[in-house]
Amino acid sequence: MPIVRATRRVHFSAAHRVFRAEWSDERNAEVFGDCSNPNWHGHNFELDVTVEGPVDPETGYVMDLKILRNALEERVIRDVDHRNLNLEVPWLDGLIPTTENLAVAIWNRIADALPEGVRLEKVILHETPRNSVEYRGEEGA
Amino acid sequence: MPIVRATRRVHFSAAHRVFRAEWSDERNAEVFGDCSNPNWHGHNFELDVTVEGPVDPETGYVMDLKILRNALEERVIRDVDHRNLNLEVPWLDGLIPTTENLAVAIWNRIADALPEGVRLEKVILHETPRNSVEYRGEEGA
Amino acid sequence: MPIVRATRRVHFSAAHRVFRAEWSDERNAEVFGDCSNPNWHGHNFELDVTVEGPVDPETGYVMDLKILRNALEERVIRDVDHRNLNLEVPWLDGLIPTTENLAVAIWNRIADALPEGVRLEKVILHETPRNSVEYRGEEGA
Amino acid sequence: MPIVRATRRVHFSAAHRVFRAEWSDERNAEVFGDCSNPNWHGHNFELDVTVEGPVDPETGYVMDLKILRNALEERVIRDVDHRNLNLEVPWLDGLIPTTENLAVAIWNRIADALPEGVRLEKVILHETPRNSVEYRGEEGA
Amino acid sequence: MPIVRATRRVHFSAAHRVFRAEWSDERNAEVFGDCSNPNWHGHNFELDVTVEGPVDPETGYVMDLKILRNALEERVIRDVDHRNLNLEVPWLDGLIPTTENLAVAIWNRIADALPEGVRLEKVILHETPRNSVEYRGEEGA
Amino acid sequence: MPIVRATRRVHFSAAHRVFRAEWSDERNAEVFGDCSNPNWHGHNFELDVTVEGPVDPETGYVMDLKILRNALEERVIRDVDHRNLNLEVPWLDGLIPTTENLAVAIWNRIADALPEGVRLEKVILHETPRNSVEYRGEEGA
Repeated sequence: MPIVRATRRVHFSAAHRVFRAEWSDERNAEVFGDCSNPNWHGHNFELDVTVEGPVDPETGYVMDLKILRNALEERVIRDVDHRNLNLEVPWLDGLIPTTENLAVAIWNRIADALPEGVRLEKVILHETPRNSVEYRGEEGA
Repeated sequence: MPIVRATRRVHFSAAHRVFRAEWSDERNAEVFGDCSNPNWHGHNFELDVTVEGPVDPETGYVMDLKILRNALEERVIRDVDHRNLNLEVPWLDGLIPTTENLAVAIWNRIADALPEGVRLEKVILHETPRNSVEYRGEEGA
Repeated sequence: MPIVRATRRVHFSAAHRVFRAEWSDERNAEVFGDCSNPNWHGHNFELDVTVEGPVDPETGYVMDLKILRNALEERVIRDVDHRNLNLEVPWLDGLIPTTENLAVAIWNRIADALPEGVRLEKVILHETPRNSVEYRGEEGA
Repeated sequence: MPIVRATRRVHFSAAHRVFRAEWSDERNAEVFGDCSNPNWHGHNFELDVTVEGPVDPETGYVMDLKILRNALEERVIRDVDHRNLNLEVPWLDGLIPTTENLAVAIWNRIADALPEGVRLEKVILHETPRNSVEYRGEEGA
Repeated sequence: MPIVRATRRVHFSAAHRVFRAEWSDERNAEVFGDCSNPNWHGHNFELDVTVEGPVDPETGYVMDLKILRNALEERVIRDVDHRNLNLEVPWLDGLIPTTENLAVAIWNRIADALPEGVRLEKVILHETPRNSVEYRGEEGA
Repeated sequence: MPIVRATRRVHFSAAHRVFRAEWSDERNAEVFGDCSNPNWHGHNFELDVTVEGPVDPETGYVMDLKILRNALEERVIRDVDHRNLNLEVPWLDGLIPTTENLAVAIWNRIADALPEGVRLEKVILHETPRNSVEYRGEEGA
């Protein structure tokens, strides 16, 4: 059976601030620049989630993408859309909300929401049309 | 001489909250929904600014778009990029930062920055890939 | 008060066939080419709907775009998305479903759904990334 | 010699219906939702085809992309553009035309059309701006 | 009968140099910056051509867009695609190939190629994703 | 620690000619078609550069993308933007400036500009919206 990857794109808009609480505003500005503005800033995020698995010979689907879309809606979008990523999202608590950390946290939210035989292949999160990150569940030293 | 319109697109990312200070959070939520979140949210804004004028027979330009780009940088982008539109932008003070009000305020910032013989034709501000507003300097009842 | 235009983009996917029932398949193929394929073909349509009005000083909105989005959902998208435009849409009955006729019919579906003081300015319908039409409610000889 | 991947994007518009012939319309609607509409629906498909090989030191090309474009035109686009994917494409016969099955079938149409030393690396098929699938020729249990 | 506008987008890639022959390289660099590089530079141009007319009740078309596409191919694209706009295009001879002058020249190439009852409404030429010009056939002092 | 990939997109516009100096114009036209036009042509290139590494627990970054952007500006964009790729770029000297060769040369310009622990993962260079190449530092027979 062919192994295929299917991708669903979803969207959210949110405010955040990239900073370390234990550093001064000056140190934060030095390391994180404008992204550490204490009055927040925000983005339209585009999130591409890719799953991989064999094509089900009965349906011709890797999985019903409506199930993936609903899982994304319930486990991610509902929590982050029109929210402050530093203050309002329990599963981001204690994290600096860089695009890297967001992508890893989103991976962890949905990796176990998939049907049997389907694995999460990657998460790509676009912060602007020019910056994005990709996470594939890999760990390293 | 041909009359031509030239457009320059620029980008900024910002946080905002759409609300009326004299209303309760409940009333604000009723009227403005998630956009009134007291903890802010944000967007990547794309701004298209269009100028109109005769083509200068010496240069073949309506105007040097670098001049327009610099005016946009100095009068708009520097003030709003990675900022909180409710708290940090003097020329938005007292305005509800809806896309409509932002577009009108941006028009007012740049209408007098153009060379003689060139007029500002329109400002289009995209708040998301699906929502935008256009202002052409018109007033009505 | 400033007069501003606000645009909302929505999406639908549909099948259609561009042909005149009283013509032979040959004549239809001659005039409409592949678009007249008796076995149908289809598109992802992107629909941009623009309204115009004064900015409400209380809300900073021309109108709440959620109201426009809901009107589009109920009066247009629900009827055409994942449908056959020749066979299944009562308000397209008897029309050749060219992009031109679709845009005019969509205008007629929503022109009276707007709040007082707000007028429908234009409808732009993209049939492919390279072909689109625009209707502004104008009639001519 | 460097190993490089080159991608060519092509486009087609088609109608289809996602359903199993041996199931009732009700069962099909349950499993496939609106996509099983017996009156068809359709999409603008964007197809990205990627080939991989060493850069030819004489030409600086992995392969002449015009050859790839022509192979795509003759083996794929000519058969599917402005067609009904369920009824009119011999090489899709008996397949449920999901994006997954289409991508695998397109792979099989072009994998042997490449010059010696160049291999088909992947096929990405976008059904809408929000849904796509990728096939890399892999088989699994 | 409804008056509708239909737009066709076409593409070309070309080299050019923005400069006045009677000026020194220094003066050209002062006025036109990098765009006056004597060794040329180039762009992917996207050209949107919009026609306006009543919807033909027999066909549902303003005009057959294939006729417009063919006129664009024969009168514009064939002459400019993969060409040097300063050296190789007779109908640009003597013009500084700014986007403004290109748009006006393209207008003049196609304004009389339209069927009776259809008028050229506008030409939009995108030089980069951030810079474009629009010409509507207007003349001024 | 999670291993993440971060991508930065940058842009340049340039002229080039795809040809072998030791071949006749006829032979070049035969092999390279319009791309070998002796009078040059040009493109808007979009360049996506992806780096890979562990997320730094102190900053939440793989690396500060401003450092990557600056390296791209200094080592690539400054040399190629608004330039002739055949005549004016020392590090392209002697190369046929195909997209493949450009991507490999850009890889070589930046692979050693990254902080310790971060590796260049891939370079994707888009020559037009329909053609692109990807290089991952691989060599083969």
